[in-house]
Amino acid sequence: MARGQRLGDLAERVGGRVVGDPDRRILDVAPLESAGPDDLSLYTGPKYRNAAEASRAGAVLVAPGTGLPGRDLLECREPYVALAVLLELFHPAPPRRPGVHPDARVAESAHVGVDVEIGPYAVIGESVTVSERVTIGAGCVLGDDSRIGAETVLHPRVVLYPRTEVGARCIIHAGAVLGGDGFGFATSGGRHHKIPQIGRVVVEDDVEIGANSTVDRAAMGETRIGAGTKIDDLVMVAHGVRIGPGCLMAAQTGIAGSTQIGAGVVFAGQSGAINHLKIGERTVVAPKSAVLQDLPPGSFVSGNPAIDQAQWRKAQAIAARLPALRSELRKMQKQLSALEERIKGKE
Amino acid sequence: MARGQRLGDLAERVGGRVVGDPDRRILDVAPLESAGPDDLSLYTGPKYRNAAEASRAGAVLVAPGTGLPGRDLLECREPYVALAVLLELFHPAPPRRPGVHPDARVAESAHVGVDVEIGPYAVIGESVTVSERVTIGAGCVLGDDSRIGAETVLHPRVVLYPRTEVGARCIIHAGAVLGGDGFGFATSGGRHHKIPQIGRVVVEDDVEIGANSTVDRAAMGETRIGAGTKIDDLVMVAHGVRIGPGCLMAAQTGIAGSTQIGAGVVFAGQSGAINHLKIGERTVVAPKSAVLQDLPPGSFVSGNPAIDQAQWRKAQAIAARLPALRSELRKMQKQLSALEERIKGKE
Amino acid sequence: MARGQRLGDLAERVGGRVVGDPDRRILDVAPLESAGPDDLSLYTGPKYRNAAEASRAGAVLVAPGTGLPGRDLLECREPYVALAVLLELFHPAPPRRPGVHPDARVAESAHVGVDVEIGPYAVIGESVTVSERVTIGAGCVLGDDSRIGAETVLHPRVVLYPRTEVGARCIIHAGAVLGGDGFGFATSGGRHHKIPQIGRVVVEDDVEIGANSTVDRAAMGETRIGAGTKIDDLVMVAHGVRIGPGCLMAAQTGIAGSTQIGAGVVFAGQSGAINHLKIGERTVVAPKSAVLQDLPPGSFVSGNPAIDQAQWRKAQAIAARLPALRSELRKMQKQLSALEERIKGKE
Repeated sequence: MARGQRLGDLAERVGGRVVGDPDRRILDVAPLESAGPDDLSLYTGPKYRNAAEASRAGAVLVAPGTGLPGRDLLECREPYVALAVLLELFHPAPPRRPGVHPDARVAESAHVGVDVEIGPYAVIGESVTVSERVTIGAGCVLGDDSRIGAETVLHPRVVLYPRTEVGARCIIHAGAVLGGDGFGFATSGGRHHKIPQIGRVVVEDDVEIGANSTVDRAAMGETRIGAGTKIDDLVMVAHGVRIGPGCLMAAQTGIAGSTQIGAGVVFAGQSGAINHLKIGERTVVAPKSAVLQDLPPGSFVSGNPAIDQAQWRKAQAIAARLPALRSELRKMQKQLSALEERIKGKE
Repeated sequence: MARGQRLGDLAERVGGRVVGDPDRRILDVAPLESAGPDDLSLYTGPKYRNAAEASRAGAVLVAPGTGLPGRDLLECREPYVALAVLLELFHPAPPRRPGVHPDARVAESAHVGVDVEIGPYAVIGESVTVSERVTIGAGCVLGDDSRIGAETVLHPRVVLYPRTEVGARCIIHAGAVLGGDGFGFATSGGRHHKIPQIGRVVVEDDVEIGANSTVDRAAMGETRIGAGTKIDDLVMVAHGVRIGPGCLMAAQTGIAGSTQIGAGVVFAGQSGAINHLKIGERTVVAPKSAVLQDLPPGSFVSGNPAIDQAQWRKAQAIAARLPALRSELRKMQKQLSALEERIKGKE
Repeated sequence: MARGQRLGDLAERVGGRVVGDPDRRILDVAPLESAGPDDLSLYTGPKYRNAAEASRAGAVLVAPGTGLPGRDLLECREPYVALAVLLELFHPAPPRRPGVHPDARVAESAHVGVDVEIGPYAVIGESVTVSERVTIGAGCVLGDDSRIGAETVLHPRVVLYPRTEVGARCIIHAGAVLGGDGFGFATSGGRHHKIPQIGRVVVEDDVEIGANSTVDRAAMGETRIGAGTKIDDLVMVAHGVRIGPGCLMAAQTGIAGSTQIGAGVVFAGQSGAINHLKIGERTVVAPKSAVLQDLPPGSFVSGNPAIDQAQWRKAQAIAARLPALRSELRKMQKQLSALEERIKGKE
């Protein structure tokens, strides 16, 4: 039997078409730099043309109309989406191993669905609900009354505080902590009295949360992560925050208490927002920016304080040359004084 | 028996007074938006007047002299402190379950006080001291010779490196790591030789440390967190840092090695300080600011480098409009040249 | 037998020489402030002269030619390197306890070398290789097919995702997560489709990684940390990043996807770099800076966007005084207008 997959069959699977030989056989997906004649590579634009031309890749996944002479091409309207599909095809997730490890502790009052996998040293508290086909990694701790939706994967050492709710098809990476106390204190006479944090965390369906990220429970009510939102590593979401669906929060982003974030918002790495803000949908916050005020939908901001990105970029270019600008000012002051003297002298 | 609590009794408990019906019965505390007629809500100021007027809350907790017509009010001099008390009343902590879980490993040389709760898969090292009424969550690891004061709570998966000392009534959240090696190297010929970190971490009484935060041991001597200081999630405190009592360090703050921080200092989210600084008591560092020099007591700073906050705010407002400012300068240069030409022409 | 070590013997061990009494006996190393007559202290420069003069230290470790009258001195060309050696001498690492704890779970297909120590509740997956003299702390999870080189130490609760490779003599601190999925999505019609992350993480020899840091696996290929590189706490290294040998990355630094970092680069605390950059060897990035473009070797940059450090410092000094600068500009505008009026009046 022939190895790999026909290029034509791959095209069919991703809704694309072949320019070249549909019978070419593909064994794997690989970057342009390391691909060989049995590999399919992704080409994303002119910046990588040299790499594409030098590549030994057997075929290249491209957007329609991309000319790469002498190559078998797989044209797709959305090459990145096609890449995701093909990577899953060539690298299927390892087979699940349903069953509760004998070294896991599952409370008798917990409800565990069918085909659930629970790893060694995991702890499942009282009245927890674990839905069907959930995977719970080694050393996870699920507090009392927490709930996990179907097919969700918890990697090792995830902690859910009591009453945390995670939806279906979520992926929570190792070390993430959901439901820890919000940072709330009533200060009187220099002493900080803890305000009990009686709310909870709700993570909707299809959310991914990165390694060692933390999402705090609300003081009252809910901290909520919208469906399909993806959160990177070491991100901090504070108490009472509401993040809409389809957002992207890159690594080390921090959102302070009670801030509301609309649908499809993007926070780049190390950015943040202070508390009690409303950030309109589709807003993009550039890396390391600090949002200090409400933003209308579709904003694109940068800096601290975050302002319109284009304005920020222009201002920063000038800011870097402030010494020269000041010199010009000083020179003009002298010119002006000299001029005043000359006129005075004539009077 | 009547359900809930009399409003008058609640007032007595928090040292406040009722304006309205002291016999109204209260079943819970809830935010203005979601409260019902059996709930008490907190009103903190004019920004929330609309919410307060629209609220279905049965009674409202306010500062003295707050007019909210047609409402039963509970007036308190410090409403936030009262809120903390009332939340504890309506939501008492779940009952503790003293005892050592059979799946915990406690060294024979460890001293474990009365009424201690140790969760499954916790590891208590040699010569560790765990005082009375301490709670140690699932999967915690207490290194040799570490000590925990009375009534302290370690949430799941906290790690104490050997010789770490934690005081009484502290709360350490899941995933926090106390006592890891400081980041110290002697570089010679491009190689970084590890400087053994032989110091330790001391956390005084009544400290709270957030999820996945890290406090490193001193190279020599101590890293010390003062009594009553509260630290949020994902905060990093480096080796040899000394933080005074009653400080607040919001999420993702970082303090570099050997910096000394006075009493009652506040670091807002994502802020930081470089090493070997002295930061005076009651200083406030605004979000995302970087302190690069010593600060006198009572400072309020912002930016990178952090400067006086009011000055920073004014400077940033102008910085955002630098392109316009430069245009004005360019225009003046032309005017000035034209003027010089005209005068020259007359001479 | 005499206690401690002869100062002369210590000098020999570190390749230094004694100025004073070589027969003085030293029992420990301690900071200038807390040292007693049996201790050796480090003196690093004039900033600490007062401390050195006031110190009760029995002897002082100094660079050649440092005059500290009335003191026994140990002169070394590289006092910090000598300090590292002497600290190890007086504070040897606690003895290892080789053996697999009965409460660890080691897959039958795993290869475990001689003199390996595996702590309680550790999980070693299928086909894992653990080389000789490795230490694996309590609660660590080593995914299938991961590999650990000789003498490496994993502190408690480290997670390696499947296929992660760690070299020899590395130190990985508690809570670190190596090999989590990179943050890669193909967005189509507002939905974020996960791009399977099929690559891995490779950590070369002699690397140290701080507590709760995360290093993500590559989308395809490798994320690689070069030999001898030292990484602090809460650092985030994204998918496909390549870090050269001998780098230093201080706490809370973040490196975005596919960025390449040369040898000997230093990132100070809370700094970062966006994706797909090339950062030349020996570059230094100042605290809290954001690198947004490629940098040539030997760069020293600061700010957001990061620019030449000296230029940044001058520009920031002026930026802080922008209100005054604008006032000068406004004043000149008035002078200029007045001058124009006067000239007009004469015409």
